[in-house]
Amino acid sequence: MSIITLTTDFGAEDAYVGTMKGVILSLNPSATIVDICHNIEPQNILQGAFVLDTAYPYFPPGTIHVVVVDPGVGTERRAIILKALGAFFVAPDNGVLSYVLRKAREFEVVSLTNPHFWLNPVSSTFHGRDIFAPVAAHLSLGVPLHEFGEPLSSPVTLPLPEPQLEADGSLIGHIIHIDRFGNLITDIKETDLPRDGLLIEASGYSIKGLSRSYAEGNEILALVGSSGNLEIAAKNGKAAEILKLRIGDQIKIKGGSA
Amino acid sequence: MSIITLTTDFGAEDAYVGTMKGVILSLNPSATIVDICHNIEPQNILQGAFVLDTAYPYFPPGTIHVVVVDPGVGTERRAIILKALGAFFVAPDNGVLSYVLRKAREFEVVSLTNPHFWLNPVSSTFHGRDIFAPVAAHLSLGVPLHEFGEPLSSPVTLPLPEPQLEADGSLIGHIIHIDRFGNLITDIKETDLPRDGLLIEASGYSIKGLSRSYAEGNEILALVGSSGNLEIAAKNGKAAEILKLRIGDQIKIKGGSA
Amino acid sequence: MSIITLTTDFGAEDAYVGTMKGVILSLNPSATIVDICHNIEPQNILQGAFVLDTAYPYFPPGTIHVVVVDPGVGTERRAIILKALGAFFVAPDNGVLSYVLRKAREFEVVSLTNPHFWLNPVSSTFHGRDIFAPVAAHLSLGVPLHEFGEPLSSPVTLPLPEPQLEADGSLIGHIIHIDRFGNLITDIKETDLPRDGLLIEASGYSIKGLSRSYAEGNEILALVGSSGNLEIAAKNGKAAEILKLRIGDQIKIKGGSA
Repeated sequence: MSIITLTTDFGAEDAYVGTMKGVILSLNPSATIVDICHNIEPQNILQGAFVLDTAYPYFPPGTIHVVVVDPGVGTERRAIILKALGAFFVAPDNGVLSYVLRKAREFEVVSLTNPHFWLNPVSSTFHGRDIFAPVAAHLSLGVPLHEFGEPLSSPVTLPLPEPQLEADGSLIGHIIHIDRFGNLITDIKETDLPRDGLLIEASGYSIKGLSRSYAEGNEILALVGSSGNLEIAAKNGKAAEILKLRIGDQIKIKGGSA
Repeated sequence: MSIITLTTDFGAEDAYVGTMKGVILSLNPSATIVDICHNIEPQNILQGAFVLDTAYPYFPPGTIHVVVVDPGVGTERRAIILKALGAFFVAPDNGVLSYVLRKAREFEVVSLTNPHFWLNPVSSTFHGRDIFAPVAAHLSLGVPLHEFGEPLSSPVTLPLPEPQLEADGSLIGHIIHIDRFGNLITDIKETDLPRDGLLIEASGYSIKGLSRSYAEGNEILALVGSSGNLEIAAKNGKAAEILKLRIGDQIKIKGGSA
Repeated sequence: MSIITLTTDFGAEDAYVGTMKGVILSLNPSATIVDICHNIEPQNILQGAFVLDTAYPYFPPGTIHVVVVDPGVGTERRAIILKALGAFFVAPDNGVLSYVLRKAREFEVVSLTNPHFWLNPVSSTFHGRDIFAPVAAHLSLGVPLHEFGEPLSSPVTLPLPEPQLEADGSLIGHIIHIDRFGNLITDIKETDLPRDGLLIEASGYSIKGLSRSYAEGNEILALVGSSGNLEIAAKNGKAAEILKLRIGDQIKIKGGSA
């Protein structure tokens, strides 16, 4: 019983994802393949990292997560398997596993250097099909980590967006993801929030205090969403459109008597 | 062998759907999970109800249908399991099962009050992950209905769109769904149609009689679609765009010598 | 162990695809169903044919590929099973299998005329649900080909886009697909390309030589993509938008000292 998940920026216009599934099932017909998300913004490594981070903890131990947001495909960037937190991650070594690595106290990484587990030939533009899918399938069949390649001690990690404390005591957060409902998901965790007198400034709007649900509060509201992060939402619309905010934009948090 | 279907307004931009699948497979690794539709208009309960209604009769008996179109998530609205028509439906108690309830002569409902079958903690914004998915998984493992909570005799039903008979004998129908091809699906059933002399007025266009297929008839045509409902279609384009009609808009049916 | 893939123009706005899966699982609960692509341009048979062609060779032998791009649904067009290249293809007989047929040295075709393997009644607008899905499910259960209907010797094939050699020695290619990244995929194969001095003219841009990956080369670059076809790509954007090219548009290839 092996579960293999797929997170990519391949979208749904093409056969890219379906082809990866064909490769996996050709090697391990009993694999259970689950789509996490294929609409990561093209080549947005950090967004892919975040979306993966909201999902993988809900899968059974031993799940193999394949993550292909890979602007450097066909260049010298490495490809890896990361074993951490009871799961496996198969991905380019470009920082897309940064959230996983930040949480992992212990981990093991191999660089995918053994072509025995790849398709042959390998295209220079679609390693999802030719390297990541077959490696994941072989891994699901029990091939030990060290057979895939050399150990790697320092996988690439990217600086993750983090709220910044300002001199006046306010906190600057960043939009790191916008979901289908137009909710603006920030890098601010519940524990970062002031305990009382919370005031949020976002794109000219002021929001006082937290709502408990999307149905409560004013037209523009804030709450701690299902990822554990502060979100800005609109009751009858898309906050992203109303506030005209995008990934990377800032919001400001004040507390106490501020 | 258990099949669990998912119908939501979660779209494909996020990991929401994938996360629900992780929760289900963590509890029942042998569940077969099938997506019915995730592009219900955000929080459009009636559209979700209709789309579900076109699909669930085609699944095997015993299938568990999870439906999450849930504008009231985190408020006092109840969550339920409905057992009816040989299937199970796990959903918020907000009317999204109205078509099912209209058809069911007998049904059984429980209110989901037993947190033993939920994730812990439960977020106030994502019951799909924290309540509906684990409840569906436990149900698929054979947990009897009464263990999930108290029986409920009157689940919420919404008034469903229905064609109205006018004083002059004409019939006013409503657009209840627009499909990918721009076909306008109405609330008019084949049995509602006059037996002869059918004339349809929609957005200034007049359509005489029914076509048998999308390839027959004039540029703008009408037919009884695969849902059994009257549809307005365009031969070489999207009727919704050409006629500028939206969900909720009206069309008029005349018959006989009218 | 049977794998059934689905390639359609049904999109994701509706329950069409989910309903087909319900029909398949009702007949063969142990089928593994894989989506190849559902965003073929509505009724674009040739694009469907091409997208299928990039994916099916990566599935295990014996896989059943259901392809529903079917502008003639409900008319006199035939429906077929094609057995070729170690796989089965269930589709309307409208040319959507043209790439498969071009490659197949030997093949067997039956016309789907035996209603015993269809749902009853059959709608005139959704043969995906009422004919193709149940036929694929019965096929996956081992029903022999000849039981589905009469042998057919000449399935419909469409003229496939092919590069044309001009009098001056240049080659005119055509855009046959645009992927999610805006990459323009052409009908030019690697073997069609001049061995040296390659110069590509596309929408006023001149591209010299091939890049090996999307990350190499100039802003607008060309490479042989994962389908084996020449692609035009943009390094930091979508080539389709920058060059304003669409499916069917032409590009020009010169070689040598041209």
